[in-house]
Amino acid sequence: MIRPLPNKDLKNKPIGVFDSGLGGLTVVNQLIRQLPRESIIYFGDTARVPYGSKSPDTVRKFAVQLTRFLQAQGVKFIVVACNTVSSVAMEKILEIATVPVLGVIEPGANAALSASHNRRIGIIGTTATVSAGKYQEVLTSMDADTVVFSRACPLFVPLVEEGWIDSEVTEMVARIYLEPLMKSGIDTLILGCTHYPIIKDIIRKTVDLSVTIVDSAIQTAREVRRLLSDKQLLNDSEKTPEYRYYVSDFPQKFEEVARRLLGQPLENVRRISLDDCL
Amino acid sequence: MIRPLPNKDLKNKPIGVFDSGLGGLTVVNQLIRQLPRESIIYFGDTARVPYGSKSPDTVRKFAVQLTRFLQAQGVKFIVVACNTVSSVAMEKILEIATVPVLGVIEPGANAALSASHNRRIGIIGTTATVSAGKYQEVLTSMDADTVVFSRACPLFVPLVEEGWIDSEVTEMVARIYLEPLMKSGIDTLILGCTHYPIIKDIIRKTVDLSVTIVDSAIQTAREVRRLLSDKQLLNDSEKTPEYRYYVSDFPQKFEEVARRLLGQPLENVRRISLDDCL
Repeated sequence: MIRPLPNKDLKNKPIGVFDSGLGGLTVVNQLIRQLPRESIIYFGDTARVPYGSKSPDTVRKFAVQLTRFLQAQGVKFIVVACNTVSSVAMEKILEIATVPVLGVIEPGANAALSASHNRRIGIIGTTATVSAGKYQEVLTSMDADTVVFSRACPLFVPLVEEGWIDSEVTEMVARIYLEPLMKSGIDTLILGCTHYPIIKDIIRKTVDLSVTIVDSAIQTAREVRRLLSDKQLLNDSEKTPEYRYYVSDFPQKFEEVARRLLGQPLENVRRISLDDCL
Repeated sequence: MIRPLPNKDLKNKPIGVFDSGLGGLTVVNQLIRQLPRESIIYFGDTARVPYGSKSPDTVRKFAVQLTRFLQAQGVKFIVVACNTVSSVAMEKILEIATVPVLGVIEPGANAALSASHNRRIGIIGTTATVSAGKYQEVLTSMDADTVVFSRACPLFVPLVEEGWIDSEVTEMVARIYLEPLMKSGIDTLILGCTHYPIIKDIIRKTVDLSVTIVDSAIQTAREVRRLLSDKQLLNDSEKTPEYRYYVSDFPQKFEEVARRLLGQPLENVRRISLDDCL
């Protein structure tokens, strides 16, 4: 007979977070701010990044591996800090999940609906996220009058990864991607990719001043706090929280990009072989 | 006792070609032109592309898997149609190779030395290729007086993959990458990435007219022909050659990018699971 872990033990376990690469660190950043007593285990699949240009099948397969890996580490809750995975793989993840799981779509959609007055909402994300239409599905199920305008911005991730975050090239790319979206009269824009908050200033400059920009990292961390509180899973120990980061590769610019995403150097990073997640 | 295959059978086997993704199709294109009687089996690791921003260790591991996969298909010769793999993984590949293997570095370096008058040679490639310094090593070992100037151009691959091949954004990125290189007085520039021939026109516009641009795809196909002839491995059957393409994923824009790289639609494409290559 398998005994469920007593709640007391469970609540002091870490939160698991995963992403295709490093973008999910923007969510970790918000979790640390909003839940300073929680320990976190992060997995970034830097050997196979990016997911956003790949097929839903492949993304689902990778997502299942990462979910299993985090569960094997004994996490109490899993945050899918990747819009692409949240868009195409949540059903598959929930099939195998033994702990509560939260994606980034619902929190972002909720915040957008609270912010929008005219119910015309824009979404930008990877090709896979936009093709999946999950934001559209969630937004219109919450409010049938919502009109959704979406645009894939596949070059934003490589531009961020390369550190071109205040470059005129990135500004030009942003104008090309966002100007058609502006013509649709949206009053709210969801940053539907965890990398995009890094170039929020450039996006801010490109869209009309009246447009509210929704950063799903902030909303997701808020929702994690609410869910942990509801389920009485908030960490109540006095111990200093621990942060552990796993990656499947150390890419060339790893340290630099991680520091930028997290706002501080990344400590306690371990590289693990993908074979161990299969 | 394992008998070697009789040469007669071996020469009618296909040539194996692999790349991190679709870039290697520029080499396939040249092989088909220069060796119209040869059958080809191609593997593009589209589930894990790109390799150029990843660590040498990870690239080596992937390269070994793809080499084993091609050998299991009974190829007579392997072309590593990827500069990143050719830069960091050739030793590892040769350890396990049971057929002759050719990378793209030596053919490109040879052609550059034939073209250069002032022995100042430029190389552009991915971050991994440039960091590895393999072109530099090969060029200076062939001619100690050669001075090599290199520049990583990591955004070129995503720009090509997204089809921005005549965009002013790509022109601006090319100027940022190439202008410092032009100041070094090079007379020859090696396109050290199999994606780059696709934006040769933009690169041509950005560099001085006097600079010779070396496309290693053409040179590599020429070298394959020479080696097969030397080893008496040229296909001498009258049968129509067969082309088979394997990919580890069908990315969103697969058909479009493949058609552009090959100059015609890709037929006979099969997707195979990466687990089958492990």
